[in-house]
Amino acid sequence: MVKKVYGVGVGIGGESLTLKALKVLNKVDKIFIPISKEGKSSVAYKLIKEFIKDNKDVEYLLFPMIKDKEKLKKYWEDALNKILKEDGEIAIITIGDPTLYSTFSYLWKLLKDNNIEVEIVNGISSIFAAASLLNISLAEGEEKLCILPQGKDLKKYVNEFDTIIVMKTKSLGEILKEINRDDITIYLAKRIGFKDQLIACGKIKDIDFELFNDYLSLAIIKKDKDDS
Amino acid sequence: MVKKVYGVGVGIGGESLTLKALKVLNKVDKIFIPISKEGKSSVAYKLIKEFIKDNKDVEYLLFPMIKDKEKLKKYWEDALNKILKEDGEIAIITIGDPTLYSTFSYLWKLLKDNNIEVEIVNGISSIFAAASLLNISLAEGEEKLCILPQGKDLKKYVNEFDTIIVMKTKSLGEILKEINRDDITIYLAKRIGFKDQLIACGKIKDIDFELFNDYLSLAIIKKDKDDS
Repeated sequence: MVKKVYGVGVGIGGESLTLKALKVLNKVDKIFIPISKEGKSSVAYKLIKEFIKDNKDVEYLLFPMIKDKEKLKKYWEDALNKILKEDGEIAIITIGDPTLYSTFSYLWKLLKDNNIEVEIVNGISSIFAAASLLNISLAEGEEKLCILPQGKDLKKYVNEFDTIIVMKTKSLGEILKEINRDDITIYLAKRIGFKDQLIACGKIKDIDFELFNDYLSLAIIKKDKDDS
Repeated sequence: MVKKVYGVGVGIGGESLTLKALKVLNKVDKIFIPISKEGKSSVAYKLIKEFIKDNKDVEYLLFPMIKDKEKLKKYWEDALNKILKEDGEIAIITIGDPTLYSTFSYLWKLLKDNNIEVEIVNGISSIFAAASLLNISLAEGEEKLCILPQGKDLKKYVNEFDTIIVMKTKSLGEILKEINRDDITIYLAKRIGFKDQLIACGKIKDIDFELFNDYLSLAIIKKDKDDS
C-alpha cells in the first residue's frame, strides 16, 4: 500500500517552483500527472518537465473536464485505486497551489477517507503570479479582498470589496459590461507561465475580453483610489 | 542610481523559498531587510538566513509599527532615499508574498513614482502555508472566499462566503464569540515557519483564542458542508 502522498503545487512552473517541491518531486518513487483527455499532454507537467529526470517513473491520471459529479466520481475512484496500489511515496502534481480551486481537493478527500498520509507542498497561485506580472498589489492595509469563481455575485460585491478576483473568466466581459462602471480598473492575465501568456489592464470599455476567453485566465478588479 | 529593485517574498522561509527567490537573493548587490525597531532582528531575514552567504552586503530599513500615516511616510521616504543611492540591483525581502498585505506595497508605490524598475518575486503566502499545515483546502469548485483584515464585517460575510480568512487576529476571539454559531469550523495558525508555530481547529466554544493573539496569526473560517 502507498506510504505517503504529496500534493505538490507547481505554481506557474519554471523558477516559481519551491525548493521543497523540487526536493519532493525528485525523491518520490512515482509522480502522478493529471490529464483532462486520454493522449493529451498535461499542463502541470509541461511547467516542470525541465526539472524531472528522464527516467523518472510517471503515470497519468485521467480527470475529464465534465460537470456531472456522479460521472466524475468514477474517475476519482479509479485514480485513488491506482494510487493505493503503489508501494512507496508518490507525488501528484497540480498547477498553482493544491489548496485553492485545485482538482486535487477531490482526491485529497478520498485519500483522507482512506487514512492515507497526505502532505501538501504549496505552490505559487496564479493569482499572485498575475499580480506580479501586472505590477500591482492585490490588497494592502485594511482592504478587503474576495475571490468569486466565474464572477458569481460580482455586481453586488464590486460595491463592497476593494479587490475582487474572478477565476475561469469565460463570460467576464458580459458581466462587466453589464456593470459598466468607470471607477474600477480591470487587470487580466491569461496562461501565465506559458509561452503565449498575456496580460492587459484598463477600463471595462477599453478591454478586448475575447483575448482572455480561456480556462487559465483570471481577472483582478480593483476600485480606483483617490491617491492612485 | 539604483538599476533595479526586486521585491522578494520569502514565504514562510526555509524550503518554501522559490528557485527564483534564491537566485535573485544571491545575485543582487545588496539585500535590504525591513525591521520594526532599531536593534531588533528581522522576521523575514530569520526565515532565509541559512541561504544567504555570510559576506553578503545587507542593510536594514526601519519601518516602525505605527498607524500615523504622516509619521510613517517619513520612514518610507528615508528607505527610498537609501535605495535610490545604490548603484546596482538590490532586493528587499518580505515575509509571505509582496502583493498581499505586505509593508512592501508602500515602498513599491514610491519606487514606481520615481520610475525605478521593480520586479516582484512571489513567495508562499501564510494563508496557503496555513491551509497545508491544517490539512484543508481553502476553496474548491464554485466556493466563494474572502479575506477580511482584522475581521471587519465578519458577522455579515459569514453568511455569504464559504471560506473567510482573517489576518492579524488580535480580537478574533471576541468577534467570533459574538457570532456564536456552531455550523462553522475555525482553523487557526500562528507564526508558521518559526520554531514556536502553532495550529488549532474546532468550534468557536472549544478554541483558546488567547494562544493565537499574535501579529503573525491568521484564521480560516469555513462553513460546515453536508458531506464533510
